[in-house]
Formats: sequence, structure tokens, C-alpha cells
Amino acid sequence: MSAASFLRRLFGRPRPGTDARVQHAVSLCEALLGERGETSGATLARDLLAAWQALDERQRGQFFDVLALEFSPDPEAVGKAADAYRDDPAPRNLIRLQELAEPARQELFRRLNMAPGGTAALVEMRRQVLRGLDEHPDWKPIDNDLLHLFRSWFNRGFLRMQRIDWRSAAIVLEKLIEYEAVHAIQGWPDLRRRLESDRRCFGFFHPQLPDEPLIFIEVALTQGMSAHVQPLLDVKAPMGDPARADCAIFYSITNCQQGLRGISFGNLLIKQVAEDLKREFPHLKTFATLSPIPGFRRWLDRTETRVKLAMGPEAEARLALLAQLDEPGWSSGEVSEALQKLLTRLCAWYLLHARRGEEPFDEVARFHLGNGAALERLNWFGDTSGAGMKRSAGMMVNYVYRLEDVERNHERYFAGHTVVASRAVEKLARKCVLSQLPEKAPEA
Amino acid sequence: MSAASFLRRLFGRPRPGTDARVQHAVSLCEALLGERGETSGATLARDLLAAWQALDERQRGQFFDVLALEFSPDPEAVGKAADAYRDDPAPRNLIRLQELAEPARQELFRRLNMAPGGTAALVEMRRQVLRGLDEHPDWKPIDNDLLHLFRSWFNRGFLRMQRIDWRSAAIVLEKLIEYEAVHAIQGWPDLRRRLESDRRCFGFFHPQLPDEPLIFIEVALTQGMSAHVQPLLDVKAPMGDPARADCAIFYSITNCQQGLRGISFGNLLIKQVAEDLKREFPHLKTFATLSPIPGFRRWLDRTETRVKLAMGPEAEARLALLAQLDEPGWSSGEVSEALQKLLTRLCAWYLLHARRGEEPFDEVARFHLGNGAALERLNWFGDTSGAGMKRSAGMMVNYVYRLEDVERNHERYFAGHTVVASRAVEKLARKCVLSQLPEKAPEA
Amino acid sequence: MSAASFLRRLFGRPRPGTDARVQHAVSLCEALLGERGETSGATLARDLLAAWQALDERQRGQFFDVLALEFSPDPEAVGKAADAYRDDPAPRNLIRLQELAEPARQELFRRLNMAPGGTAALVEMRRQVLRGLDEHPDWKPIDNDLLHLFRSWFNRGFLRMQRIDWRSAAIVLEKLIEYEAVHAIQGWPDLRRRLESDRRCFGFFHPQLPDEPLIFIEVALTQGMSAHVQPLLDVKAPMGDPARADCAIFYSITNCQQGLRGISFGNLLIKQVAEDLKREFPHLKTFATLSPIPGFRRWLDRTETRVKLAMGPEAEARLALLAQLDEPGWSSGEVSEALQKLLTRLCAWYLLHARRGEEPFDEVARFHLGNGAALERLNWFGDTSGAGMKRSAGMMVNYVYRLEDVERNHERYFAGHTVVASRAVEKLARKCVLSQLPEKAPEA
Amino acid sequence: MSAASFLRRLFGRPRPGTDARVQHAVSLCEALLGERGETSGATLARDLLAAWQALDERQRGQFFDVLALEFSPDPEAVGKAADAYRDDPAPRNLIRLQELAEPARQELFRRLNMAPGGTAALVEMRRQVLRGLDEHPDWKPIDNDLLHLFRSWFNRGFLRMQRIDWRSAAIVLEKLIEYEAVHAIQGWPDLRRRLESDRRCFGFFHPQLPDEPLIFIEVALTQGMSAHVQPLLDVKAPMGDPARADCAIFYSITNCQQGLRGISFGNLLIKQVAEDLKREFPHLKTFATLSPIPGFRRWLDRTETRVKLAMGPEAEARLALLAQLDEPGWSSGEVSEALQKLLTRLCAWYLLHARRGEEPFDEVARFHLGNGAALERLNWFGDTSGAGMKRSAGMMVNYVYRLEDVERNHERYFAGHTVVASRAVEKLARKCVLSQLPEKAPEA
Repeated sequence: MSAASFLRRLFGRPRPGTDARVQHAVSLCEALLGERGETSGATLARDLLAAWQALDERQRGQFFDVLALEFSPDPEAVGKAADAYRDDPAPRNLIRLQELAEPARQELFRRLNMAPGGTAALVEMRRQVLRGLDEHPDWKPIDNDLLHLFRSWFNRGFLRMQRIDWRSAAIVLEKLIEYEAVHAIQGWPDLRRRLESDRRCFGFFHPQLPDEPLIFIEVALTQGMSAHVQPLLDVKAPMGDPARADCAIFYSITNCQQGLRGISFGNLLIKQVAEDLKREFPHLKTFATLSPIPGFRRWLDRTETRVKLAMGPEAEARLALLAQLDEPGWSSGEVSEALQKLLTRLCAWYLLHARRGEEPFDEVARFHLGNGAALERLNWFGDTSGAGMKRSAGMMVNYVYRLEDVERNHERYFAGHTVVASRAVEKLARKCVLSQLPEKAPEA
Repeated sequence: MSAASFLRRLFGRPRPGTDARVQHAVSLCEALLGERGETSGATLARDLLAAWQALDERQRGQFFDVLALEFSPDPEAVGKAADAYRDDPAPRNLIRLQELAEPARQELFRRLNMAPGGTAALVEMRRQVLRGLDEHPDWKPIDNDLLHLFRSWFNRGFLRMQRIDWRSAAIVLEKLIEYEAVHAIQGWPDLRRRLESDRRCFGFFHPQLPDEPLIFIEVALTQGMSAHVQPLLDVKAPMGDPARADCAIFYSITNCQQGLRGISFGNLLIKQVAEDLKREFPHLKTFATLSPIPGFRRWLDRTETRVKLAMGPEAEARLALLAQLDEPGWSSGEVSEALQKLLTRLCAWYLLHARRGEEPFDEVARFHLGNGAALERLNWFGDTSGAGMKRSAGMMVNYVYRLEDVERNHERYFAGHTVVASRAVEKLARKCVLSQLPEKAPEA
Repeated sequence: MSAASFLRRLFGRPRPGTDARVQHAVSLCEALLGERGETSGATLARDLLAAWQALDERQRGQFFDVLALEFSPDPEAVGKAADAYRDDPAPRNLIRLQELAEPARQELFRRLNMAPGGTAALVEMRRQVLRGLDEHPDWKPIDNDLLHLFRSWFNRGFLRMQRIDWRSAAIVLEKLIEYEAVHAIQGWPDLRRRLESDRRCFGFFHPQLPDEPLIFIEVALTQGMSAHVQPLLDVKAPMGDPARADCAIFYSITNCQQGLRGISFGNLLIKQVAEDLKREFPHLKTFATLSPIPGFRRWLDRTETRVKLAMGPEAEARLALLAQLDEPGWSSGEVSEALQKLLTRLCAWYLLHARRGEEPFDEVARFHLGNGAALERLNWFGDTSGAGMKRSAGMMVNYVYRLEDVERNHERYFAGHTVVASRAVEKLARKCVLSQLPEKAPEA
Repeated sequence: MSAASFLRRLFGRPRPGTDARVQHAVSLCEALLGERGETSGATLARDLLAAWQALDERQRGQFFDVLALEFSPDPEAVGKAADAYRDDPAPRNLIRLQELAEPARQELFRRLNMAPGGTAALVEMRRQVLRGLDEHPDWKPIDNDLLHLFRSWFNRGFLRMQRIDWRSAAIVLEKLIEYEAVHAIQGWPDLRRRLESDRRCFGFFHPQLPDEPLIFIEVALTQGMSAHVQPLLDVKAPMGDPARADCAIFYSITNCQQGLRGISFGNLLIKQVAEDLKREFPHLKTFATLSPIPGFRRWLDRTETRVKLAMGPEAEARLALLAQLDEPGWSSGEVSEALQKLLTRLCAWYLLHARRGEEPFDEVARFHLGNGAALERLNWFGDTSGAGMKRSAGMMVNYVYRLEDVERNHERYFAGHTVVASRAVEKLARKCVLSQLPEKAPEA
């Protein structure tokens, strides 16, 4: 039985418990897949898109159920094709196997993509699949098929890097306000300040989603490497002179499309931005981030960590110091040098040694170290916002991108998850009490 | 054994009889596939592209041999995964099967596409694979993988229809001269005439190949449906007034990229052009082609056809008439009415009844009928050029696109390969001697 | 003595009471005018621009004094040239006269315009001249020369009409917020609503000032002719369907550049917008404004008007009614029908008969009637904002642009300042007490 | 009598001997000038443009006659205004004088410019006026008015420099072929070679004439300063590597619009091109022309020159050498060293000392020296084309633009028409027999 006849067997049959609208959408899927010419195909794709958009959330769930169940390969047919290929790995057997192993869903999505607005709708579809995945693990193949297509369609070759500034379209700029995930943008004046002449903002765009940044990065051109983020976020900050800057600080990077999760844009964006800035401003010497440390306090509060900290000499004093963090407003008055010293060293240790599996515990660290950056400096009270205090007791970190070291660091990271760090940070980590405990450091 | 370890087993081994340059290119393929980050990936893709472009034709053949042999799925591994899916069609088994069934080539090509110029290089690569396919049938899986990717990448959703006129870039215009396949363009003045205000030219473009039309169509805005192509091709033809035209004549359509063979653009282009013209010139009533009949004389010369024509009454006179076609310059003097009548009826019969398998014998007929056009009119001496005489004894045909019938015709065609034709053409075919022979018409 | 030597006589001499910076700027003017090649001209223009921009307001005044005094034609020389032309109006005498009659200022401004940013600086310069003109009537020739140049440079042929929408650059959009003069825009959400799909906004732009609208107009696509402006200004107004609109309401038009005062853009903009909208939405039947009546209450409060209103029968009751307008909040409660009737009729009379010289008293009326529009309808409480109540007791008016009547109306207006009005408005005016007074209506 | 009433007196009267079509065009001029609003103005401008374009050449002559005669200032009125200004140079008298001194033609042209295509039509109008000027000296004021407006409209501030390459629109490229005035372009392949990657072409464009270059320059990026132009013009010349070039050779510069004669673009273009190239290719060291010497042989054939050459020692041998130039094919065989030496020295003397008035005799020399370039090197047989032999016995010259010297050279040139030349050229000139004649060099 061919793949088509397998599908045909399933098509058109009643599906009890499925709304009429969903049945209609599914029958459009079947018709679209059954189309041989493109003429009616384009119309069908348009109709299907409209039908899908008219479904409410519950109905979309039903639709996903059908997609997951009925548009997968026929186990028998694909099994036989695999047997034939195992017997004789000839081209025709391979091609037959590929045909049968690819779910009809992929062809369905490719055809749906022909409708105007198709790409955006599919990205949105995956967003909804991903959101429901915990409850509906059987939707996983839908996610997988969409991801597979998106990897093709959002291939770096098809992306355009664009500078975003105050000349950009408002429809794009409002997306920045909506999407910014690291340091929320407080309306248009805040946005405008971040796009002035001493700043740069770049994004990747896809020709099919011209008004939608896929990812964007905000850069400040500064003299010296910034240690504190609040001055960068201050709407009234005095304008710097980009011609005199020696440092490009990447202070925010945001992936915009949840439906594109798993496709990595950040690395390529940072690299190209650094290259372009270097060309525009040859006197730039340092390319560095000013990054949050999102997992630090979470890690600090883990039982495992607490147990370790309760061991060894001066444990009591240590715990007493840390207990201050739980007091509201601990940071608004005088903070004892002892606490600062303790936290800084713990944070250095955390960034160098705390793990999740083999990789660093901290997700931002994983991202930049994986890109080939080096851990350069810890900044006490680098982010004194509520979010910053909550995430990391106000601490921030600079990762430095040295263009000449990036590839080597990147390879070392992927070879053994080596965390490349400055001597200063390494020294802080060594002085941390956790380094001095007799047994092996706890796996985070 | 995972797909990766299967590959690893193959990688790096010596390949006797393979040039060092090819070995180097293959090792770059391996490195590119082994890459986990994108940083060095982009560099590797660039290097691989350069390495591939430095290969001569013979070396490219060796490279294809390796690609076909070593970057296919592992038969054992994929067989086991298919077994597992046959036993239990659970999501995880499906996903595993898909992973293993997809050749590493596809991922390789996706990564190569990241390099600047990658898409163009891959299209060129497929062109060369296709050209060598008869001699190297084992390259078929490479063709298949590229076609699979191109179907995704050159999906209608990603194409842009652009008008091409005398304001277009010379780099695009020279491609028209180079590619035009139906009525050769005799240099820049000829091209310019075809882009004047009483003409239209449109093409599909892909964002990644901005200077390369994928397909283009030439249209004349005329009063009445053109029967002869030479006046349309005449560089000195007087300018028509588009505001007074009632007819849009599609007199040439050319697929430009051999490397994209098998991906159909023409149907969608014609449809969108017709819609756009209708909007710009609401008084247009007829959308029709003036098309060649490329297979007519070839079919006429087939033994099968000749045998039939030698039967029945007046066979001798008939064959004597047809023999005139073999005389050089038969058409330059007076042509007998008897010959004109005979050829016209044969041509009508040919277009309505001659088959290749279930489909019409004539490839241009297949294209337009499959698009939903109707066979409208035969034009004696419609194309008196050497090529026109050779293809079809000078005959041309108008296919009409009636926007309201296109879908229905298209469906009838694909349901039973019904050739929708005007009464006039049907009448000509009925009068043809082949319709009057006792037995069933010969399958062409 | 030639013009040049006349200037040379003046140049370089000390000017007591003039700041050094001004002296420097003036000497750059002299150098720029003395330049024969363009090479150093471009540099000098740049320097002069910078020197001018560095002057403070008082210094700019001094600079204008010098410009007005020293860069005018030499009275003796131009007098002689005029004598020669009077004696013999030969070409050479005409050309000589033109050379001498044109102030050196004009050539200076033309050369200054070569500097990047020159046009913008000159527009700004005129804005400042105009602002100081009351105090410094001797600056009038500077104004005159700039106006003369601007009429050439901002000729309709050089302007581009652009649609402004949410895809426009933020740098342009923020100008709308800044400049809007009729119904202030309350920030970005308000602006966004005014650019939605049931609205249109168009502006004229000059290639040299790409981020600066010269004028812009806001249009609502509605069903039926709007009588009240507040629903149009409501940020939360429900979205209309432009496909079902039969009416285009021009509810705001703003000239942006004070430095371009006296150059009329509005007429041409309205006409082109109406034509473009008619093409995009062929079902639009009515093109009308919803306009303020800025002079109504001012006219009502004039002594002349009051005197007339105090005459004739029922004068006391009338004045008592009008006295209500002076009470704060008179419109927030119940408004008596008598007052409404009185005001409406007075307003109709005002629009039809109140004059300033030969032209209508109301400046908005002058603009639209001069463009060829007709006075269509009065709208009670059309604008209940504070500004609207203050300007015109809340009344608004629709002027209708009937494309087929516009030229004739325009000519009638300029021939005899005829106010073309609907019967309804004419009837209201006839019923107005001022129409019934024995003597001739007071000249407003 | 006001200017308007003066015109009114002239308007509408019969003009014997004037065609009806011309009468109609003139009456449209009068109507357009009489227009107070812009509404009908735009329509009238359109009508006038069409009426003018429908005139044949003879009729245009009649039209110019009327324009010259009737649209000039009223001598009496302007005379009185000048008297008043002489008596009292007050602002109002100045403004009045300016109003009356400006011919109505200028306002007419400004209004005509509002019509679509108006600017192009006015440029064409001036071209025709200039062509007829010798026969019709009374048209001079029309020329003068148009030139005055064009100086404003084609002010450097409004021009855009654009790179022209193979991506440019064909409609622009064909203009290069049409206009190229120095080294004719032999069709599209020749053009294409001149736009390859080792060449650059730039032009100035005006927003109102987007498809019309005003001027363009062709540049070759070479290693070493080119001495011969034929290799640069060879369609099959091997491609150079721009990254390795140290020299930018300006080998052709063409003013395109005869109607813009008298407005200088070349200087600014060369300067901006040099700056842009320096930025793109920082390793460029020399910016030089390879220029024709259009007046050399013409000067050589002048009686004055011949008389001088017939004087002094060895006069006979000298004249015998020069007589060779009159023999056809003198340059195709061996050329004697004596002749080469003689011609080279004469040419150096010519470029340094031959004058027309105070300026150099050679027009190309006047242009580049006036721009601030220096005479660098003579090139024997630099241009062996027929035109090159005829102009200058095959000699060419390099003018060098040293960015740091340009302003000083320019000023020296305009101060005393000093010809800045290299020592080598000066030495050649000193050795020339004409330098050794006892009396003062003949004024050319």
C-alpha cells in the first residue's frame, strides 16, 4: 500500500468528538495534499489558512490531534521500504524509503506556506504546539516536522541583517518594545534613547516576515567596558561620541519568535555585528557583553548548595550573611564588605563550576561561552533593578568576544565544556569557600 | 550505531583513485557536518564552497561519487528504527526513524547554503548532477536530496513576481537574452522592443538569487487574438496602445534554471500575471497564448503515424502531399490548399488525440492544458521562422485562459486528461482522416 | 561700478557693535560670494553653515541686520541699468538689469544650499526672520529673497506625495505628533489609531528634507459624512471596513514648516489625495472635510457684531442667550433649543457673509472655498473639546469637494469671492437675524 | 501701470504671421500666468506642456519670438521702480523693483515645471533656444531666464551622485552609450566592460530626471598611471584586481544635457568621486586623468603658430617634419625620433603657454587646471584612434588631482591663470623652439 493510499484510507472518515470546523479544516488538508496542479493548490492553501485561523484554542487542539495521528508515515509501508533498503541499499530503494519516511505533514506545511501569510501562520502554529507539548506529548512529531522545515526556511543564507534605528518602520519598532526580554523597554522615549547615535541595534529578518525581527541585539558604544547597566538604560543619559568609543557593549539580546525555538540565530548575529562595527569604527578595541546571571540566586537557594555552604569553617557566619538576602531592602542601605566578598566569590565559583549535566548551569553563560566568548569580569551591583536583584543579587558579568580567540574558545567549549575565564575571575573562584571544601565540588 | 558514528566510520578513510582536491572537499564536508556551533560552521561552509568551485569537471564527478556513496543513511540503523516504528508507532520512534532516514547530504546542503552564494552554487550543483545522471544513475539520490530542499526553498511563498522592463537592471536583462528558449532574442534592440509599453514581461525571483529570473513570461497587449508571431517579434513593429487592447497574448514563457528542473513555476506565474493585468487593464477580455507545437512534425514522422496515414482511401495522394514537407523551401512558394487542409486537420487531431502514456503527446499542450487553459485556435503559418517550420510546419496554436473556467478545466484534465478544446478545433479533428479510420486511433 | 565692486566696497569693513562671531560669518559670506570655482565653494558653504549655526539668537539678529543692509543691490548701479533698459529694451540691457536687480543675498543662499543640510538651515533661517519681522521691518528683503528661492525649490514638480502609515519611519511619525495643529495627537497610541486601515494619511516631502513632511492630511474612510470629530479621534474607536466606506473625511490638515509660509501646498495635496483615493476605492462617493470654524466666536465677540445683534426685535432675549456662552460649563448641561437655533443661524451667516476685506472672515473657509470646495453642512457640537468650544461654540462644518465642480467653484471664488454653499446652509443664513436687519450686513 | 496690466495689454492680441497652434500655446501661457489658485494651474501647466510638445520646429521658433518679446519686464514700470529705489533704498522699494525686474517668463517657467515632465521639457526648451541663438540673438533673455532657474533647481544640494554599474537600469545605461563624448561606446559589450569590477562609473542625477545622468565619469583602477587609452577601451582587456590598484584614472567625463550648458557639475563630481574612491580603496595613491588635448593640432595649424615656427634656426627642417603630419598614415609606420621630439616639446609648450585671452587655449586644460589639477605627464601615442590622431597627433596628457594641493592650485589658477605643471613637462616646454625665440611667445 502506497503512502497515498494509506492516507486515503484515513481521509474523509468521521472523527467522533471532533468539531465540524475542525473536520472542515482537516478535509482541506486532505484536498490540498491530493492536489496535483498548483492552480487550485494556491486557493486551497488560502482556504486552509483561513479555516485554521478561524479555529479557537480548543479546536486547534483537536486539529493537532488529527495532524499527529493521521498524517504520519504508514508503519507497515515504511517498514517494508526499510527492509528493502537494508537488503539492497540501491538508489531506488533509498528514494522510496525517504518518500515513505517523510510524514505527509511536511508536504502539507510546505503547501500551506504558499498562501500569503503562510509562513507567519506556521510559526504561530508551532508556538501553540510547543505550548501544549507537556500536556500532549503526542504532538511532538508536529513540532519535529515544523522545526525540520524551519531549519530549511530560516537557514542563515535566507536571513538579512538590518540595522534598526529611528528611521525604521514603527511597525518594526513596536515589536522591539513588545519582545525585549532582558531589560524591558519603557515606551517610545526609552526606545528612542536606545537607538541614538551612540547606540546600535541590529536584527535578523526573513524576507517572508519583513515586519518581524527574528532576533535583535542592542549595543552601546562606550569608552571603557561598562560595569553597570542602569546608566545604559537611563532615558536621560548624556549622548556619547561614537567616534571616541573604544568598546562595544552588547547589553541585550532577544529571540523574538517562540515558534522558532531551537533555531539558533544569536551566535551568527553577534559575530556579524562585531564584524560590521569593527569596519565602521576601526578604533573599537573591545567587544563585550554586559550580561545578567539569571541562575545565580536560584542555584544559591538549591538544597545542594546550601548543604555545602553549611559545611567547613565559619559556616554559621556565612549562612548569617546569606540570610540577609532574604530581608527586603537588604541592598538599599550599607552592604557589608563581608557579604559583598562572599557573594562575589560564590558567583565566580558558580559561573566557573556549577553545572547542569556537563554544561554550565547558567543559561546565559552557556550561550556566550558556546559562542566562543570568555568570562571577563564580575560587576557588583551591575543591575540594581528589581529583576536584577532577584536574579543575581544585582551582579552582572562581562563576556568578552575576542575575534581572534572566538573559534578556539568555541572549540574548547564544545570539546570539554571548558569555561574560558580571566585570571581575575579564576582567582575569585579559587578564594571561594566551595573551592576549599575537601570533597569534589557538588554537581549543580 | 548512531547515524553520526556510521558516518564517522566512513569519514577520513583514504579513497583510492580520488584526487587530493576532492579528498580535501570531502573532508570539509565531514568537518561541516561535525560542527556543533555556527561560528566555525559559517567559515567552513565558505571554505567548502570555494573548494567545490575549484574542482574541475572530472573532479566534481568524483566528488558526486563520494557524496552518493558515503552520505546516505546507514541501512542497518534505519532498518532497526523502522522495525521499532512498525512495532510501536510512538512519537519517539517516528522521530528517530526520520532522523535516520534523512541522508546526511541534506544537512550538508543546508549548511553549505549558509555561505554567501551557497544557494546559487547548489542550484548549479544539481544542474551538473542532472547532466551526468544518465551515465551515473547512482547520483540519483543527490538529485533527489537537492530537489527535496529546493522544493522547500523555492516554495511559492518565498518567490517574488517582478515586472521586468527597460528600467530593470542590465544584469537581469542580459539573462533574458541568454535564457529565452522559445523565440530567441536577437540582442538589445530586440529585447527593448519586447519591453515597450504595449508589452509586459514578468518573472519570478528568489530573495537569494536577486539577479536571476527563475522563469519569465512575455506578453503582448493586442487588439484581437494574435495568430502570427512574427509581427510580435518584429523589432520595428509599430507601437500599440495598451489602453485600447482587449487581449493579452502570452507569446513566450521560459524556465531559466536547469538546476531547478521539476519545480513548477509556470502555472502560478501565468495565473498571477493574468490577475495583475486584469487589474491594470480592466478592459482586457482575452488571456491567451500564442504557442508553438513542438512535437507535431516529430509525431508526424513516427512510423506509427505514417502507417496509419498510408491506410484508407486516397492514401497515395495524402502521402504525396506530405512528402512535400521534405523538400527544402516547400513553404516559400504557393502552398496548395489541399496540403494546408491536410496539415491543419492532422494538427488538430494531434493536439486532441495523440498521447504519450495517458497525457497529450505535445509538451506545451500538456503544460497549458494542465494549467486549465483550453485549446482555442490553430494558426496556419503562425511561425514562419526556420525553427517554427521545423517544429510544426509553421503552425501555432492559441490556448485560452478563461479565468472562470481554469479550475474546472484543470480538474477535468487531471481527472481524465480531457483536452478541453473549442468547437472549431474539434471539428477540424473530426474531419481528419485519422478520425475516420475504422480501428482505434494509434497511441502516439 | 559693477555689483561686485559695490559689494567689495562694503566687504571687510569693520562693523561697530557687531560680535566677532557675526563678523566671521559675514566674512565667510563675502568669501563664498567671491568664489569662482566650486571646489573651495563647497567647503566655504559648509563653514558658513557651521558658523551660522553657532550664532545665538542675538547674534543672528545682528547677522540679519548685515544681510539686509549690505547684500542688497546698489541703487545707483541698478538705477542706471534701468535707465538704459528704458531707453532701449534690448536683450543685453534687460540681462544687465536683471543681474543688478537681483540681491547678492540670493546667490549667497543658493551657494549656501550646496552644503549638506543647507536647505534645512535656510528654511530655519526664514522662520527666524519671519518671527522677528514685526520688530525688524528692514529684514523684509531677506524674507522676500528666501521666499523667492523657496518658490523655485519647493515647486510642486519637486515634491513627492507619500502615504504615511505605521510602516513609515519613526523619525517621520514623531513629526506628525509634534506638528499636528488641528486636533493634537496624544502620543503614539493615538497616532497609531489614526494610521489604521480605515484611515489614510498623506504628506508632501521634498528630496532634500526626506524626514520632514511639508504638509500632511489625515483622512477617515467612513460610511456617511461625519458630523462629529470626537469619534474620529477616539483611540478606542472600532475599526471601520474601508471596503464598505462611501465617504472620505479630511479631518485634519497641517502645514509643518513655518519657514515655508506663503508657499501653498494644501490645495494640491487635497486634490491628489482625492484622486488617489478614488482610484483605490472606486466606491467612494463623497470627499468632504470635517473642519473647525476658527474665527466664529472671535467674530461673534467683535463690537461690530454685538452692535448689530443688539438691534431689531427681541434683541434683549438674543443677548441673554449669547451671554450664556460666557458661563463656564454652559455646554455641559442641557442647552436650550433657542440657543442652538440662534448659534447655528449666526454661524451659517458668518460663513456666508462675514468678510475680511473681500474674502471670507474665516481662514479655514478661505482655504477650502478657494480650493473649490462647497460649504455643505453645519454640525452642532461637532467638536466638544475645549479648543472646539472656544473657537466655535463646538460647531464644525463640512466642506465638500465635488471633483467635477472644483474648478468652476474655484474660479467663481476668485472672480467674486462667491461662497458656494448648500441650500440648507443658505436657508439657515437667511433665517439669521442679521439677514433681516434693514441695513447692509456689517463688514466683519 | 503694474506688471500684470502691462502683460494684460499685450495678451490676447492677434499676432500676424503666427500659426494658430502657437497662438493657442501663448494663450495657455497667459492663462497660466493669470491663475491665482493652483487647482486649475496644474491642469493648465499640463495643457501648456502638451501644446508646446505638439509644435514643430518652425512653430517653436515663433513661440520663442513671442516669449522673448512679450514676457519681458515693462521698461517704463521697472524704470520708475528703479528711480524710487535710487531715491530711497527702502525695503518696499527694493521688493517692488525686484518684482518688476523679474520677467514674467520666469514665473511662467516655474508654473510649467509643475506639470509631470515639466523639468525635462524646460531643459529641452533651452537646448533648442541655445541652438537657435546665433540666428536669433533676441532669444537671449529666454536662455538667461532658464539658466537662472536651472542654477537654482540643479543646485548641488539637490543632486545625487550614483554609482552606475551593470546593476543599473537599462534606461540609464543606454544614455551612456548615447551621450559619451570623449571615447565613443561601441554598443553594450563595450559598455559592460567599462562597468566591470576594475572600473567605476559615477553620475550626478536630479530627483526630477531620475533616468537622465546630468554628467558621468568613467574611472579605471590601475597599477601605475595609464599612459595609453586604447588598452582601457579594449573590450577584451584582462580584468584587473581593484584591491591591488594604486591609481584611479579618470579617462572620460561627459556632460550630458546641452540644455544645462553653463552649469558646472564636473568639478564637484571629480572631487566627490576621488573622496569616495579613497574611502573604498585606501591604498589608492594617485588620482589622475588620461585626457585628450583637443586643441593641439588646431593651434599648430594656426597662421600665428606657423609663422613663429618658420622663424629661427633650422626652420626648414622643422617645417618639413611637421609637413609629415599631413600625409595620410604618417603614424602607421616608423615615426622619426626627431618628429616625436619636436611634437612632444611643442605640445608641452602649447599646454603651458598657448592662451585664449588670459586662459589656456586648450579647453580640457582649462577645465582640469581650473579644478585644481596639475599637468603631470605627456603621453606619446596615448590615443591612436582616428579622432586622437586628428585632435592631437595621438598625444594625451595626465592631469593629477592631489587632494592636498587642489584648493591651492585652484586658487593660483583663478588668481593669475598659473598652469601648475610637473618639472618634466616644464623642461619639455623650455626645450621647445618657441621658448627660444627672441621675442615674447605669441598669444594663441
